[in-house]
Amino acid sequence: MGIRVAVAGASGYAGGELLRLVAGHPEFDLVTATAHAQAGRPVTAVHPQLAGLDLVLGATDPTALADADLVFLALPHGESAALAAALPETVKVVDLGADHRLRDAAAWVRYYGGPHAGAWTYGLPELPGQRAAIAAATRVANTGCYAVATTLALAPLIAAGAVHPTDVVVVAASGSSGAGRAAKAHLLGSEVMGDLSPYKVGAHQHVPEIKQATGATSLSFTSVLAPMPRGILATVTAVPTGDADPHAVLTAAYADAPFVHVLPEGTWPHTAATAGGNSCHLQAAVDLDSGRVIVASAVDNLGKGAAGQAVQNANLMFGLPETTGLSVWGIAP
Amino acid sequence: MGIRVAVAGASGYAGGELLRLVAGHPEFDLVTATAHAQAGRPVTAVHPQLAGLDLVLGATDPTALADADLVFLALPHGESAALAAALPETVKVVDLGADHRLRDAAAWVRYYGGPHAGAWTYGLPELPGQRAAIAAATRVANTGCYAVATTLALAPLIAAGAVHPTDVVVVAASGSSGAGRAAKAHLLGSEVMGDLSPYKVGAHQHVPEIKQATGATSLSFTSVLAPMPRGILATVTAVPTGDADPHAVLTAAYADAPFVHVLPEGTWPHTAATAGGNSCHLQAAVDLDSGRVIVASAVDNLGKGAAGQAVQNANLMFGLPETTGLSVWGIAP
Amino acid sequence: MGIRVAVAGASGYAGGELLRLVAGHPEFDLVTATAHAQAGRPVTAVHPQLAGLDLVLGATDPTALADADLVFLALPHGESAALAAALPETVKVVDLGADHRLRDAAAWVRYYGGPHAGAWTYGLPELPGQRAAIAAATRVANTGCYAVATTLALAPLIAAGAVHPTDVVVVAASGSSGAGRAAKAHLLGSEVMGDLSPYKVGAHQHVPEIKQATGATSLSFTSVLAPMPRGILATVTAVPTGDADPHAVLTAAYADAPFVHVLPEGTWPHTAATAGGNSCHLQAAVDLDSGRVIVASAVDNLGKGAAGQAVQNANLMFGLPETTGLSVWGIAP
Amino acid sequence: MGIRVAVAGASGYAGGELLRLVAGHPEFDLVTATAHAQAGRPVTAVHPQLAGLDLVLGATDPTALADADLVFLALPHGESAALAAALPETVKVVDLGADHRLRDAAAWVRYYGGPHAGAWTYGLPELPGQRAAIAAATRVANTGCYAVATTLALAPLIAAGAVHPTDVVVVAASGSSGAGRAAKAHLLGSEVMGDLSPYKVGAHQHVPEIKQATGATSLSFTSVLAPMPRGILATVTAVPTGDADPHAVLTAAYADAPFVHVLPEGTWPHTAATAGGNSCHLQAAVDLDSGRVIVASAVDNLGKGAAGQAVQNANLMFGLPETTGLSVWGIAP
Repeated sequence: MGIRVAVAGASGYAGGELLRLVAGHPEFDLVTATAHAQAGRPVTAVHPQLAGLDLVLGATDPTALADADLVFLALPHGESAALAAALPETVKVVDLGADHRLRDAAAWVRYYGGPHAGAWTYGLPELPGQRAAIAAATRVANTGCYAVATTLALAPLIAAGAVHPTDVVVVAASGSSGAGRAAKAHLLGSEVMGDLSPYKVGAHQHVPEIKQATGATSLSFTSVLAPMPRGILATVTAVPTGDADPHAVLTAAYADAPFVHVLPEGTWPHTAATAGGNSCHLQAAVDLDSGRVIVASAVDNLGKGAAGQAVQNANLMFGLPETTGLSVWGIAP
Repeated sequence: MGIRVAVAGASGYAGGELLRLVAGHPEFDLVTATAHAQAGRPVTAVHPQLAGLDLVLGATDPTALADADLVFLALPHGESAALAAALPETVKVVDLGADHRLRDAAAWVRYYGGPHAGAWTYGLPELPGQRAAIAAATRVANTGCYAVATTLALAPLIAAGAVHPTDVVVVAASGSSGAGRAAKAHLLGSEVMGDLSPYKVGAHQHVPEIKQATGATSLSFTSVLAPMPRGILATVTAVPTGDADPHAVLTAAYADAPFVHVLPEGTWPHTAATAGGNSCHLQAAVDLDSGRVIVASAVDNLGKGAAGQAVQNANLMFGLPETTGLSVWGIAP
Repeated sequence: MGIRVAVAGASGYAGGELLRLVAGHPEFDLVTATAHAQAGRPVTAVHPQLAGLDLVLGATDPTALADADLVFLALPHGESAALAAALPETVKVVDLGADHRLRDAAAWVRYYGGPHAGAWTYGLPELPGQRAAIAAATRVANTGCYAVATTLALAPLIAAGAVHPTDVVVVAASGSSGAGRAAKAHLLGSEVMGDLSPYKVGAHQHVPEIKQATGATSLSFTSVLAPMPRGILATVTAVPTGDADPHAVLTAAYADAPFVHVLPEGTWPHTAATAGGNSCHLQAAVDLDSGRVIVASAVDNLGKGAAGQAVQNANLMFGLPETTGLSVWGIAP
Repeated sequence: MGIRVAVAGASGYAGGELLRLVAGHPEFDLVTATAHAQAGRPVTAVHPQLAGLDLVLGATDPTALADADLVFLALPHGESAALAAALPETVKVVDLGADHRLRDAAAWVRYYGGPHAGAWTYGLPELPGQRAAIAAATRVANTGCYAVATTLALAPLIAAGAVHPTDVVVVAASGSSGAGRAAKAHLLGSEVMGDLSPYKVGAHQHVPEIKQATGATSLSFTSVLAPMPRGILATVTAVPTGDADPHAVLTAAYADAPFVHVLPEGTWPHTAATAGGNSCHLQAAVDLDSGRVIVASAVDNLGKGAAGQAVQNANLMFGLPETTGLSVWGIAP
């Protein structure tokens, strides 16, 4: 008899990836999957890639979820706080939404608007001390997709004093699944294919989360929609404080992190190499002209950037090895 | 102590997928991976998606492989026969190449040229009686990628007498990984993206294999290169003999096949739903105007069309459940 | 003072291509562009590729259009008949919709439903005698996108008696712009990229149009959505009546057609080579196994398959050279 | 009798685009097209999109080119200097390669290696005073593809004193045609599709060119390969000197530039909107957190980034309106 798991918001892309991971997890029993507009439909009608998974989507309400040992919330931002508040404390919860990521209420109001629901334990196990915090928590706020790619590249360099936190510039591009599954004209295949387009320029809501997680004090962030279904490539640059080798700093920081791979020097990350897995690939160099440190970071936005990370957190919360039911390998080509 | 496995031709796309499946298989130990031009390089330099897999590519020769219990040959057509002949009988072999698929030497000469190496047990477990044959074999010829998609759609309809074998028309499109990893100008991303292009029209080498496997006596086959990395969609049409419901015939034929999903009526296969898994999705209809039976069949050309199928065959050859180490689910989106 | 042109339905993909062609046409003055939901917005807000085109979308109604010498209707099927009926006879009209393509009212009801509006002159200039008919018409029904690709491949072979009209099998794949610009979840980039999916299998509404235009008496037609913005590849197969060389038949048929290119023997069409232009590329072969004639036909669904064809028809209607303002060349890669 | 034009290096992607533009240009006669490995083949065998263009590729040597009034050199970097030196002064030359772009010999040696061939007039007409310089020149060095996208975004801001030249950070992504047409395994469609990958990080050879053209004194530049055939999106950030509105500065700078469009505030560039045309789309904002100015710049790397720009320069050199034979509009979707 395994850990009983429910997925709320199971009809979206992160929800579908959660279903795949939970249903294939050796210690989890997928007992409930809920949705809004798709409630009542078989899972396979919404996620044909899960052929044979015999489950019908229920409606998303607390009673449908309260029976589980573990609930993943994969809801639009702003919808998980109220739902989570209605779940008994005995149910462990991982929220893939943003509602409980920020400690700073003013930052919440500035970037998201509406009332701030308060912060939960931040679900990025690779941050110092965070594995233990997550293991002790019953409520974990999963990282944002851009935040995980950027934070894994930047946090060790700031923590080691290798770069200044005062002038960080990030340009990060994401595949279209990061924009969700709602039908919007600008996300049509005809619009997305063959196109790169920046959006939320200089105003992305992951900025305060990245600052909180890395200690950066000034962050220029530009997000770009890229013509591929999955993947994030974050290019993170900062001003070095001295001659510390950024590759060595990153390598040391992730010596014990099973899902973070600092590639051999000279080899740069490809998002495709992370697709379908829970890994982050990193590489760093010093710019020949400016002397800036440049770190490239690749993740699957639905893997290490969402559902994979969520399962990793849940593993820790239940005392399982953090790699249980997760693959470090991508599916390529 | 698991079954010791070697992969020859590990630097190509099918080879990479074999490495991923073998290294993650609960009963297999990946002990050897070989290549030609890439010999001497770490696997991760050639397949960055397998970050952390600590293995160096050796040279492809019989002595490097003879020590294994099981060898997968993922070599260019025409190169596996000589290599296989040099392996001891005690080593079980699954050949992903075409060398041993055809029983008809004249067909071999016509479509491939060169001497015919003779036929091995044909590695399509879903054909009637074939699971037992594969289980008893030490040498298995894995199916061609187009052949598996087409045969799974067509064979039960001919076997049941539901369609005539005399006028079968197939148009099948494949993602670019089906064309291999050799650097060729017409396979550059700039050429492939945004493009559909037919090739080997009316002369594809999988024609005799499909005829042998299905009993079709006349087969028009057109192959098309599609702008995606993975996936085959085969559209198979034939003339019905009477009023048999093709959906019912297919459903009955695959009632016990864990990797073949005949979708609910009205739902058509998507190649993306099979990507990364070992499944085949099928649907059938009768054409409103012509009355022809149309079956659409989707597989991942590297999964059920190559490496997944090969592992499925190997499972049978070693008395394991056919699903061991394989996923029926695709990675989408 | 040029010919005054209005485009109704200018916010969609065919509408945008019409705007580009009309605004760049040496004899046309683009005076009016109308839309439904987008009325009131600048053209460039809806079609950013037309930067600098200073025009605001009006509402689609007869009074806005009646002032033009020429009106292109690029409306959803079923919406152009009523609008066209309200335009004065002195205004020449090219309808890109299906409303006036079919002569057979029963076929209309079967494939489209609703009342049949009656047939106009069929707008495929390459059919025998059709240039003159179009030149004499004030109302022209532009061909369907799949219909133009299929008809150009098939009509000369049936007309020449080279193939039987009784057993024609077509599989045709289209880029996503063929599915329109309305926001639908299954057309999202995340769904379309990396995916081939059949739709309207055996029941596509272009079937009666193709039969009418080619003389085929039995037509099996399967349409497939392909992961690219533009382009149609139609694979057309039929049973030969004798030994006529299909390449020679096609070459003779299109000797004087500036937009149809029968490629040198052995060279197969690529959709990408037609993107952005008004051309159709053709090649034919005889299947080695079945003996069927296979013709591959590539067009840009928005070019020769829609807007380009419409301008070609309009040129004829106004006594201009058929190539005025059109390019035979595609934009590649 | 028009201006007689030759294109050297006509078999590559920039070469093909040049052929399309020159052959369609109202004042140019395309008389010669040359190539290396493809010499002797018809243009249409190499560029099937140019169906009907009846020209055979010659070998690239000075005698084949000397007869023209205008020669475009679209050769690999390092190959044009020797060829250009062998052409008579009466022949006007636009070099799409890098050989004559840099005035600083040390920078040439550092980023390209080999002997420095000396600088020609720099072919970016939108820089202050440059139209006149180009008009007076017989030798023009066309801009690099990344350089044009970055320079158009940055140069006016530095020139106006709106941003500091001392801390410029650029991340720019290009479609695969920017990497050329040579068959390389890492550029295969299977590798490129679904993938973002950085390359030449912190060491791109366009850095000294951008510094020379903009006055930037410190430039961090990261280039990324994106999964699309065409297009560059450059994200350019710099530190403002005060409160100057970057949108207003750019708008004023390009008031008379027919090919540069500063989009309405709030509307961001899409590369797809520039595909096939000769335009650059720009937008700017001030980062909410860091206060940096962020400019996004989109061009078609083969259009304004190469062949279109080259024709624009040639128009100026021959006293023609700069827009002759060029379209400001892209082909979308």
